[in-house]
Amino acid sequence: MRKIQIFDSTLRDGAQGEGISYSVRDKLAIVQALDEFKVDYIEAGNPASNPKDIEFFEKLRGKKLSHAKLCAFGSTRRKGVKPEDDAGLLSLINTGAPTVSIFGKSWDLHVDKVLRVSREENLDLVYSTIKFLKDRGLEVVFDAEHYFDGVMGNEDYALKVLGAAMDAGADCLCLCDTNGGTLPHQITSRVLQVRERFPDANIGIHCHNDTGCAVASSIAAVEAGAMQVQGTFVGTGERCGNADLSIIIPNLQLKMGYSCVDSDLSDLFSAVRHICELSNIGVYQSKPYVGDSAFAHKGGMHIDGVNKLSSSFEHIDPKTVGNSRRFLMSEVSGRTTVIKKLEAVAPDLDRESPEVAQILEKIKQLENQGYQYEAADASFEMMALRTLGRFNAHFTPIIYRTSGEYPPPAGERSASAILSIQVDGREETTAAMGNGPVNALDIALRKALAVFYPGLSEVRLTDYKVRVLTGAEATASKVRVLIQSTDGDTSWNTVGVGTDVVAASWEALCDSLEYVLHRKDKKIS
Amino acid sequence: MRKIQIFDSTLRDGAQGEGISYSVRDKLAIVQALDEFKVDYIEAGNPASNPKDIEFFEKLRGKKLSHAKLCAFGSTRRKGVKPEDDAGLLSLINTGAPTVSIFGKSWDLHVDKVLRVSREENLDLVYSTIKFLKDRGLEVVFDAEHYFDGVMGNEDYALKVLGAAMDAGADCLCLCDTNGGTLPHQITSRVLQVRERFPDANIGIHCHNDTGCAVASSIAAVEAGAMQVQGTFVGTGERCGNADLSIIIPNLQLKMGYSCVDSDLSDLFSAVRHICELSNIGVYQSKPYVGDSAFAHKGGMHIDGVNKLSSSFEHIDPKTVGNSRRFLMSEVSGRTTVIKKLEAVAPDLDRESPEVAQILEKIKQLENQGYQYEAADASFEMMALRTLGRFNAHFTPIIYRTSGEYPPPAGERSASAILSIQVDGREETTAAMGNGPVNALDIALRKALAVFYPGLSEVRLTDYKVRVLTGAEATASKVRVLIQSTDGDTSWNTVGVGTDVVAASWEALCDSLEYVLHRKDKKIS
Repeated sequence: MRKIQIFDSTLRDGAQGEGISYSVRDKLAIVQALDEFKVDYIEAGNPASNPKDIEFFEKLRGKKLSHAKLCAFGSTRRKGVKPEDDAGLLSLINTGAPTVSIFGKSWDLHVDKVLRVSREENLDLVYSTIKFLKDRGLEVVFDAEHYFDGVMGNEDYALKVLGAAMDAGADCLCLCDTNGGTLPHQITSRVLQVRERFPDANIGIHCHNDTGCAVASSIAAVEAGAMQVQGTFVGTGERCGNADLSIIIPNLQLKMGYSCVDSDLSDLFSAVRHICELSNIGVYQSKPYVGDSAFAHKGGMHIDGVNKLSSSFEHIDPKTVGNSRRFLMSEVSGRTTVIKKLEAVAPDLDRESPEVAQILEKIKQLENQGYQYEAADASFEMMALRTLGRFNAHFTPIIYRTSGEYPPPAGERSASAILSIQVDGREETTAAMGNGPVNALDIALRKALAVFYPGLSEVRLTDYKVRVLTGAEATASKVRVLIQSTDGDTSWNTVGVGTDVVAASWEALCDSLEYVLHRKDKKIS
Repeated sequence: MRKIQIFDSTLRDGAQGEGISYSVRDKLAIVQALDEFKVDYIEAGNPASNPKDIEFFEKLRGKKLSHAKLCAFGSTRRKGVKPEDDAGLLSLINTGAPTVSIFGKSWDLHVDKVLRVSREENLDLVYSTIKFLKDRGLEVVFDAEHYFDGVMGNEDYALKVLGAAMDAGADCLCLCDTNGGTLPHQITSRVLQVRERFPDANIGIHCHNDTGCAVASSIAAVEAGAMQVQGTFVGTGERCGNADLSIIIPNLQLKMGYSCVDSDLSDLFSAVRHICELSNIGVYQSKPYVGDSAFAHKGGMHIDGVNKLSSSFEHIDPKTVGNSRRFLMSEVSGRTTVIKKLEAVAPDLDRESPEVAQILEKIKQLENQGYQYEAADASFEMMALRTLGRFNAHFTPIIYRTSGEYPPPAGERSASAILSIQVDGREETTAAMGNGPVNALDIALRKALAVFYPGLSEVRLTDYKVRVLTGAEATASKVRVLIQSTDGDTSWNTVGVGTDVVAASWEALCDSLEYVLHRKDKKIS
């Protein structure tokens, strides 16, 4: 089982992604998460271009990582400056990181037009920079910038640049598809060529996703002999992002027999979520291996198939990566799905129970009205129990009144809500201001419930979606509101429908808070 | 230049994606968009599994598509039923579509465990189904379900299934990676094998993205000899989605010299947006070729490089696919686009006019706040004129107050609005009830304006969309509201943004009615 080095650049190249911005604290937390996942290298910043990174490396100094090596990123020395006088190189050494990655030009066009030095001089920039760092005992990864464009434009020169890096003692020749435009078959042939030319080199690959092929290209490079894969843990990065390590690692390790990380991939799901959270981005629903939909089945035939034989429509067991199978409710999914879902809620029912037919009938009615349960598990569970007469409500919404105004009164919010709820015969009336009527209702409802159920304070909404169902009727259209809530540990989804967006939101809000109370009961009993 | 057939399954396999649900009207609009983009096949639905699809095919009957062929999807006949008595096959024929795609089992495991017929019988299901349809003059695409798992498990049997389809006269043998777990190098070798075994076959490829390689696998299949690529236009589909045609087409056509669609790819950007909008999903920021970040440069070195030499950090010219370059931390992008748009409104301005810089600055500010003019031409035109000081408002909104209540009072609607507007110094105050606060405001605003502008009665809203911009702040999120209006002849779009959905809708409503008054002036003058 060939070992492939995993080189993570979430904190360096990943930070070039639009909307990504890490505080020093975020960076420290990500270093810890990556180390726990046992990646081999953490490229953590560029001390010469970013003063925040100097502070960050300072904070890491002396901290022991359990598995990963810290790596600082910089460029070849400036022209006309000796390595020992080059501020950039000195700042790299000053970080105290045992590994440095140095990017240098390998595309003649760039040497001529962007760097504007002679081609000979560029070879010396590469050689002398790496030599200087090697002499100081550092491990050096040479990032050959634009390698594939370079070698396709001027093969001889690009290979010469790699030769200069080899001569200087580079520990890894990393071939970078900086523009991201190279396709997998081109990657294969060029990696094979480098391997033939430099049989002793440790070859690395660094892909970007501009053709949607970064994962495949990285894998192609490994198949052709690369020993190191550079990427970012969740695929963040400039333009279309870097190669996504959270997809490459399971591909290589679960499907191709390589060894990437010495850790159980069942942590992958939570590691991705943790790093996305720290990066303030969502995990997209269809993300391979770890997305919420990655093992979600909707078509009736697929659901039937998975029930008969799980490998029917699943390429791996979702548990292997910490994910789980989901059956989505929809007009096409049918009885099998419903049964499957009911197992958790009403295990006494089976396919032939008259109650199942009753629930199916109810779903059909509600779907006709615009409800959709595939993304609202919590509402589904409660609807089923209500239909069966097995649900104990924890509160009854009595009335609400909202008001909004334009322009908003000076210093105040644009909307307010008053509402009454009833719990065990006791009525509680309260009110709140908000950024809009829905926000005001949300705040007021929590306030009212807190009187009876103090434990609700940790619950918060994490997503709010509105979809207009029948656009043609314009502002009298029906809308469907989906709300996602969390208590910090788990999250759940609820749905509301109506012609009034406020009323539909109210329904989903009530369901969300009802669900957390209902679930607490279940745990106790 | 080898022609590759583009087979789009947005409306069939794409509709299996979580959260995707198309009305008949949505489907008709998507057919039109795909036909305009000149894909070769539109797999539009499964009449046997979905009654909505029967209505949809009925509506399409007799409609002439300019380029694409319509395709209906179904399975091989049921066991023990003659083709001519099989309800599924008859429903396919009844659609009137010239092409049908038939999926059948090619994995022995599935034949044994899921379909539960003898292997011989399965061969006959495939043969007799295709033969029956061919005899009725239809073009038949055979979708060999789970082909790659099948051929890797029992090579002989999987090839026999393809043989049965060939013998029956199938026009295309489409190899489906139904579970999405196959990697590109495996796709390559298996396509080559089929090509060798059936040199006369027209081979198709149908990939799913469960390993993040669907684009690369589709390309690998083409390189190995496949003539048809199946996918969905924007990558929607069950689990991790289908192969994304909006990435595959430019890869094949711009980078590999194949001919996919006989249309200018500069429409790609708007086609993707249009189809995403109809599917009610966003275009993810980092989407290759057409995402907002696809040509966005953030790193200082990259921006400098692109300025010196555009190919520095761009694999293609963004204009080729209708996208544009953005510099994230520097000023002004899209000057050309804006100029283009301004031509109609202020033809006296050119690239160098200081007013253009002023409008660009304004757009940047507004886009930061969440406005988007891509789908709101009317709001753009008025914003530009307002910025130039060339806009005469036809009314001034003074105040509104809305109220909503739950439960709705008996026999009444759930919300009411009162508002005041001013026209030429005269104030008009009125009120209305509605299905929700927005609907009430809409009715009241028309009522108030009718006092001054009687001609407005033919104007009505035709679409109303709400998109939440920052889901993480839940009910306090910002929303963007898009409204489409018509006067019977033409339609126009307006936008509003705010944390209060009512206030954002109000902004878009006012713009919509202001626009029709503004346009009438222009016609008269």
